[in-house]
Amino acid sequence: MPTDSTDQQSEFTVTPDTVEGDIDYQDLLDRFGADELTDEQVARFPDPHPMVRRKVFYAGRDVDRFLSAAESGETVSLVTGVGPSGPMHIGHAMHFYHAKHLQERTGAHVYVPLSDDEKYFGKDLSLAEIGEYARENLRDLLAVGFDPERTRVVIDTADADVVYPLAVQFGKHVTQSTMEATYGDPGNVGRSFYPAVQIAHLLLPQLVHGRHASLVPIAADQDPHVRLARDVAGKERFDVAKPAALLSKFLPTLDGPGKMSSSDDAPAVLLTDDRETVERKVQTHAYSGGKSSLDAHREHGGDPEVDVAYQLLAFFFEDDDATLDRLAREYRAGDLLSGDLKGYAAERIADFLDAHRERRERITDLDAELAKYRLTDDERERALPEGVGQFG
Amino acid sequence: MPTDSTDQQSEFTVTPDTVEGDIDYQDLLDRFGADELTDEQVARFPDPHPMVRRKVFYAGRDVDRFLSAAESGETVSLVTGVGPSGPMHIGHAMHFYHAKHLQERTGAHVYVPLSDDEKYFGKDLSLAEIGEYARENLRDLLAVGFDPERTRVVIDTADADVVYPLAVQFGKHVTQSTMEATYGDPGNVGRSFYPAVQIAHLLLPQLVHGRHASLVPIAADQDPHVRLARDVAGKERFDVAKPAALLSKFLPTLDGPGKMSSSDDAPAVLLTDDRETVERKVQTHAYSGGKSSLDAHREHGGDPEVDVAYQLLAFFFEDDDATLDRLAREYRAGDLLSGDLKGYAAERIADFLDAHRERRERITDLDAELAKYRLTDDERERALPEGVGQFG
Repeated sequence: MPTDSTDQQSEFTVTPDTVEGDIDYQDLLDRFGADELTDEQVARFPDPHPMVRRKVFYAGRDVDRFLSAAESGETVSLVTGVGPSGPMHIGHAMHFYHAKHLQERTGAHVYVPLSDDEKYFGKDLSLAEIGEYARENLRDLLAVGFDPERTRVVIDTADADVVYPLAVQFGKHVTQSTMEATYGDPGNVGRSFYPAVQIAHLLLPQLVHGRHASLVPIAADQDPHVRLARDVAGKERFDVAKPAALLSKFLPTLDGPGKMSSSDDAPAVLLTDDRETVERKVQTHAYSGGKSSLDAHREHGGDPEVDVAYQLLAFFFEDDDATLDRLAREYRAGDLLSGDLKGYAAERIADFLDAHRERRERITDLDAELAKYRLTDDERERALPEGVGQFG
Repeated sequence: MPTDSTDQQSEFTVTPDTVEGDIDYQDLLDRFGADELTDEQVARFPDPHPMVRRKVFYAGRDVDRFLSAAESGETVSLVTGVGPSGPMHIGHAMHFYHAKHLQERTGAHVYVPLSDDEKYFGKDLSLAEIGEYARENLRDLLAVGFDPERTRVVIDTADADVVYPLAVQFGKHVTQSTMEATYGDPGNVGRSFYPAVQIAHLLLPQLVHGRHASLVPIAADQDPHVRLARDVAGKERFDVAKPAALLSKFLPTLDGPGKMSSSDDAPAVLLTDDRETVERKVQTHAYSGGKSSLDAHREHGGDPEVDVAYQLLAFFFEDDDATLDRLAREYRAGDLLSGDLKGYAAERIADFLDAHRERRERITDLDAELAKYRLTDDERERALPEGVGQFG
């Protein structure tokens, strides 16, 4: 496992804590030792989501095993989490709606861990403040419309009866030096232990539903988490398979592609933003691939590859390939102006958010709605390590 | 906080993991910065237990504060735990029966954490094996006869719904470097985190019952745990007082005084041993302060200070001071032979164990009995940090 992904030649850094520089995604795969997603694999995804079709998810580990299991109608699962330290933005939505898309087509169990513990360890926030963010995040999460029969939300502190014993089970097999080689100086002892909690997250679907192909769709910088879980899954006498990984590029934020929202100051488009706010944020802040003057743009055209409005459409918000191609063509030709491209993107994002917000507002009683997504007593019992939970 | 209690001059080592050499208890206090227990303090203990009267508990921190609160009839509590990695021996019993004695005279809440997580992290045992030891240990613990209204048994994995969120709360305030300075190389990440769990144990009575004087009677080598909890209790915005400590000498094991049972190979007297077994273990293994020949013993006498049979009587098993003085006098004079002293000690221990075993065997349904000692839902809710537990 590489201890540091900084490389003098390529001049970019990708660790779970830091994403900096111009990412060379191919180079990143070489560093991480993951496999590029092939066209054959893309074609095997049932009704591939635009994020797969357009290789926003561009790499993975053991993806074939997941696809084969899904094709055979076997039990499969996805794990896609969130750390509640602020309001959710469209980057979170992309991952959750992709998971919902895949759930609808494969019947996958979807497990969504909320790592309130990790956010508390790492941020200058109280548990009460994080609890407030968790409630807001949960509203967004439930608004996605996952199948409550097949979806479980796991909140680290609120589900500690299961999460902690499992983290104990796995934490014995993570040395402090492996932790530090993977994540760097932990600071406090909570951050030392958290990798064990994350392993519990990633293996939980198999502990509840039995050994099966479990897939973790995740931004590439989070790959070390999956590798650690795979190492421990291989070591343990538990009957679990190594979770597969589906690695995405970093979702664009308004001030430029290839950066993570959490590490810059640009305003993110939040899931609660109304049409006007979306329009204003995109028009004002979205990094443009157009030329600086109208005449220059008309003459030389724009570059959709670095244009955030275009990238947002390509990553997620424009489902239709023909439309997307046309936009790129017209933009390159200088026929489509930056402001108009932004206007179109803002409209598509606002349409999406209108629908999301409508579902969000329909959740009047969060606790009652959340209850459908909590682990059942039976599921908790099945997940616990042998010898734990015997005292009721 | 001293990082290493090894001292070239005194040639003994005392850390939570290691006790080696001839302990100089006065020197140990200087190293730890604790206060020697004064005669005035001993006299303030209500009906002082032999372990206090004879200064087996010989030092402490903030003992006066605890005594004042107890004298005023305020809420007070004791925390005395056990790590379930084997059967309980008479050393465990001494601490538990002392706590019961103090509970009866002060109305103290007694909290007994079972650190199954810590034993799993540190020993080559499975959680299932540790769970078996936990059940056996619980039988002994409940046989002590604590007041179920005022006594709570907390099992780290089984009560993780409370223990983990509290450990999260405190773990943010324990740096990895403090952890390593206190405990040395943790090995796995579970052991890194465990100090945060232990802080939760030590502060739990105050979190449940409100700020009050809480006392931790503990062997001196475990003092660093208390110091860490005191540091964090001082830092936190929680309304808790620093827990007081009552530090004991190391309880004698059969092969000599001043050693911990966990770090040597001598057979311990177990709480389940019958009269014959106790007699055999004491006669065969108890380190003797007598002379090697009968004639030499008759002429020069024995040394009760190093005689384990005598020490066991003095530490716990002979309540009557006059009898103890007489035994010492006769032993020193050579009138009392080693075998007879051992015989007397074995008899007193066996009497004690007979009564204990009888109460132990009366527990036919461990789970039903244990239920009386578990945290109630209301107590759990009160203990949880703000912002945790809101999801039911």
